[in-house]
Parts: sequence; structure tokens; C-alpha cells
Amino acid sequence: MDNLFVALVHYPVVNRRQETIASALTNLDLHDIARACMTFGVRAFYVITPFPDQRDLARQIVRHWTEGAGGQLNPDRRQALEKIRIADTLEDVIGQIATERHEPVICVGTSAREGGQAPVTARQLRHRLTVTNDSHLLIFGTAWGLANELLSRCDLQLAPIQGSDTYNHLSVRSAVSIYLDRLTND
Amino acid sequence: MDNLFVALVHYPVVNRRQETIASALTNLDLHDIARACMTFGVRAFYVITPFPDQRDLARQIVRHWTEGAGGQLNPDRRQALEKIRIADTLEDVIGQIATERHEPVICVGTSAREGGQAPVTARQLRHRLTVTNDSHLLIFGTAWGLANELLSRCDLQLAPIQGSDTYNHLSVRSAVSIYLDRLTND
Repeated sequence: MDNLFVALVHYPVVNRRQETIASALTNLDLHDIARACMTFGVRAFYVITPFPDQRDLARQIVRHWTEGAGGQLNPDRRQALEKIRIADTLEDVIGQIATERHEPVICVGTSAREGGQAPVTARQLRHRLTVTNDSHLLIFGTAWGLANELLSRCDLQLAPIQGSDTYNHLSVRSAVSIYLDRLTND
Repeated sequence: MDNLFVALVHYPVVNRRQETIASALTNLDLHDIARACMTFGVRAFYVITPFPDQRDLARQIVRHWTEGAGGQLNPDRRQALEKIRIADTLEDVIGQIATERHEPVICVGTSAREGGQAPVTARQLRHRLTVTNDSHLLIFGTAWGLANELLSRCDLQLAPIQGSDTYNHLSVRSAVSIYLDRLTND
């Protein structure tokens, strides 16, 4: 999927009281999501945080596994973490992708709750990815999910993952994995 | 899925050189897999390790989120971690499930590699879960996956998750999430 990108957002996201916050980096988010992106052929995985020290930390983790001891011991992990790019804002990411591919960038929000706009299913999005060259950026929120101010700026919103009942509190690592599988496998 | 159980095995699993080892507990495995099990209606999630101190650690984590401060702050997480049961061996787990449900227990192994036996697809397994009352125990390995000595004792083996190419190094947290989604959603 040459035109599919993934972004993990640390601001603006919400806490359990639905207040807008900036969340801290989680090491395993980087590993799990990079491995899923590598497995399912995502072009790049952007880690977005406005805090310079958190971006430094993310770069340090990535370097350990791409250039340092981690990557020598574990080449599979190296390949996965090479997918990671660190960014300051969503706007920066959109600009970088537009510069790289010279195609429009379609922002696809995700949420565990139904959004204001009619959601697209994974099947519909997979169809879009094959019939258009547009770049599609699949955007995930940390903490309790993306803030509405970001979701409302997205061009599309993916339908929430439904479980067997009303409970739906997957980790962002699980949600990314499930959506990428759905976009790849029937 | 009243007849579906999940187990996470810390021994016998293999390391990157395919040697049989026992792995250490990972906190986020408990959280992510419990949340996926709760979302997709799995009956119980067994964490299996032969080390008494690791079982104590697992119990301490579970208690914090079910009876302690964590569960009061975050009732959704409490519900998920209440799915967790701690066990010493796979045999113990099979015995517990048989005692609880009075039905045969079918062990379903998972691996990122093709097994010796013909694999079942998630669709085939979903069909089985609806047409039989047998308990099905979906077994996942930590580290580099389940050792062959355990896989060869399973009644069935799920087909590996295929990505877009040959690379297939998902975290166990991702693999559980994807399989449970496939068993629930079409």
C-alpha cells in the first residue's frame, strides 16, 4: 500500500474526562505500530508530539533499533523501526507527505466513538486506496483518543471497531493492528 | 463467544535462535490482551508461567486494576483485567476449563510460521465456535513464539497472519487483537 501512511498523535488528544491534553510517549506504541506497519506494507509511520524532549526521546529509541545495538541483534526490528518518522504537528506531516508524493493527502481519523460525519468502513477505504493515487493518512490518538478539534478537520473517519457487545476499550496498538489487517486481508 | 478462551504462554517458547526458553512477564501484554478479550467477548484470559515470582507479579498487577486504586480510577480497565486468570501450566488451564464447562477442550495453537498440520482459518474456527459447545483455547506464545513441543500437542493450528509481503513480525498483542477481530467480524 504505497499510498497509505499512519500517524500516532500525542496532541490534541483527550483524557478520561474528555479534556484536551498532550500525552507522553509510550515505547511499546513505537515498536508494535512500526511492526504492524512493516507487516502490512504501510509507507511510513509518523509519531507526532509537540514536545521537543519527547521527540528527542523518540529519536533515541528509533536510533537504538536502527543504528545501534538493538538493530544489530534484531534486524527484523530494525526494518520495522525504520518506518518511523518523528514530527511536531499534523500539518508538518501532511506537508511532508505532499512533498514526497505530489498527490493530495486525505486525512482519515479514527475513534472508538461514532463521529459527526458518516464513517467509511475499512472495506470502502481499501477500495479507495486501490482506485486513487491520493495519499491517505490514517490518524490514531493516544490516551482516550483524538480530540474532536482534530477529528473534525479530517476528510474521512473510519467506522469504530465493534466488539461482541458495547464494551470497546482497545489499546491504540490493537486498534492500529486490526485496521491494517482489515485493509489488507478480506 | 462463551466457548472461547485465550492463553498467553511464557514457557515453552523460543528465542531468536529457536532455543526453548521461559520468557518474562510483560505488563502491557496483560493490559492489551485483556482489553481485546473483553471487547471481543472471550470468556477468560489465562496468563501461564512456571515461575512462582512471575505469577505473584501478575497477580499484583491484576489486583491493582481490579481491587486497588487503578480499578477505581478506571472501571473500564477493571472490567478487562477481571478476565485474567494466572496459571502454572497449560495442563492446569485445560483442567480448569474442563471442570468449569464440562465440555471437551480443543487447543488451538498459533504461530507466525506454517505448522506441520493443515492450518484452520479464522473463518473456519468461527464456524466451529458456533456449531459446537466444545471449549476452544486459543494459545499464543511470547518471545519468538510457541515452541514446537507445545504446538505439536495442539488439536488445531490457526493459519498465520499474512501481511502484504513476506515480513511478518507482529507483536503478540497485535496478533491476538487481529485474530479476535477476525473471529468476531466478517
